[in-house]
Amino acid sequence: MLGCNYRYINIFGVISVENNKKAIVLFSGGLDSSTALIIALSQGYQCIALTINYKQRHSYEIVSSKIFLKNYKAVEHIVYDLDLSMIEGSALTDNKIDVPKIESSGIPVTYVPARNTLFLSIASSFAESKKIKDIFIGVNAIDYSGYPDCRPEFIKSFEEMINKATKYGLEHGDITIHTPLIELTKAEIIKKGTNLGIDYSKTVSCYSLDSDGSACGVCDSCRFRKQGFQDAGIEDPTIYK
Amino acid sequence: MLGCNYRYINIFGVISVENNKKAIVLFSGGLDSSTALIIALSQGYQCIALTINYKQRHSYEIVSSKIFLKNYKAVEHIVYDLDLSMIEGSALTDNKIDVPKIESSGIPVTYVPARNTLFLSIASSFAESKKIKDIFIGVNAIDYSGYPDCRPEFIKSFEEMINKATKYGLEHGDITIHTPLIELTKAEIIKKGTNLGIDYSKTVSCYSLDSDGSACGVCDSCRFRKQGFQDAGIEDPTIYK
Repeated sequence: MLGCNYRYINIFGVISVENNKKAIVLFSGGLDSSTALIIALSQGYQCIALTINYKQRHSYEIVSSKIFLKNYKAVEHIVYDLDLSMIEGSALTDNKIDVPKIESSGIPVTYVPARNTLFLSIASSFAESKKIKDIFIGVNAIDYSGYPDCRPEFIKSFEEMINKATKYGLEHGDITIHTPLIELTKAEIIKKGTNLGIDYSKTVSCYSLDSDGSACGVCDSCRFRKQGFQDAGIEDPTIYK
Repeated sequence: MLGCNYRYINIFGVISVENNKKAIVLFSGGLDSSTALIIALSQGYQCIALTINYKQRHSYEIVSSKIFLKNYKAVEHIVYDLDLSMIEGSALTDNKIDVPKIESSGIPVTYVPARNTLFLSIASSFAESKKIKDIFIGVNAIDYSGYPDCRPEFIKSFEEMINKATKYGLEHGDITIHTPLIELTKAEIIKKGTNLGIDYSKTVSCYSLDSDGSACGVCDSCRFRKQGFQDAGIEDPTIYK
């Protein structure tokens, strides 16, 4: 279907996809990136969802991303393997370190060195090879863990860099990193996604999911999610243990 | 040996390695990155050579890098697998495209989208996890193929970005991308490396090496290498077919 005008129906109605308006969307199957993906679709982009399997502790992200996309058949899905198991010092890649169950001060131990730089670099390489100039990432710098690579300063800097790094960037200078959630609270994200018809029961945020599929409810990611639903006044479909 | 003062002997003499002065060096086993590595060593850095196996057409780079390092036992060597075989449109990752045998105008088809961004991102992730702030890359913007990600503008921009992207960068702001060759001609690189005792017969530059190990002599990379030795007035140890 690439390169042609078409319309498709998904659970939230009919969306027009414009000719040649394509985007790569970094997509983990979590609350934020699912919302970013559906926002990109709602803006008329024909989307390739790019899920990075980086041997993360919470590797059910990969399964979760596939389940979510069953409702969005028009989205092409690429799962890319990037082995970060050698990255020491992060609770998400280093099994010797536990995911904290209480709020920590400063940048938490779940920080993965240069993760979003890596993810955006892979997305940029894919994008250029497919002649796509628009990349979406669901980073958020309001209700977040303080990761440096979720902040607007980083995104702006990456965008400047990638326009110098690539042939397309050098020739056109308009490679764009879209961050539709960056200045929204978690509650605003949930409200926006709910209005776009997202079924958040099919998204998973927890870093320490139980084997029965229930979320821990106490990791950073769970805490922001729980609070977000509460603040939005929307029922949280997550099953916590 | 990490974290201690020591001295070691290599083929070009005795080099002092200072305590805690460590660097990650992107290292393909080619002429430029070998020279960058030896320059880093000569500056007193304890080096980790990082070779990226990106399923490149010229995958003998991996073997070549191991052969070169046999003379430099103090250098830790990491070979990292990064599958770029899905990157379409580059003669180095897409087997449907031949490596050109004549000089082309503009950025040649051997350009790999965002390659140095990816390589530097991986190096940065490794570096941060190992508490290293210095990264070397043997890019050159004089006798080169015009790849955008070999230019000083790109390197400066990447350095700015990575200092915003990472916890270490945010806290210290001094992650440094060293490019000791960027403003040297190929002849100057060869002279510098020769003075540092590099055996260039153990480096390989060709994109289309023959099965008997001889270089094609006509690809971009071979042309710059041949001309460099000629201009330097140093005998070229490369076996061309």
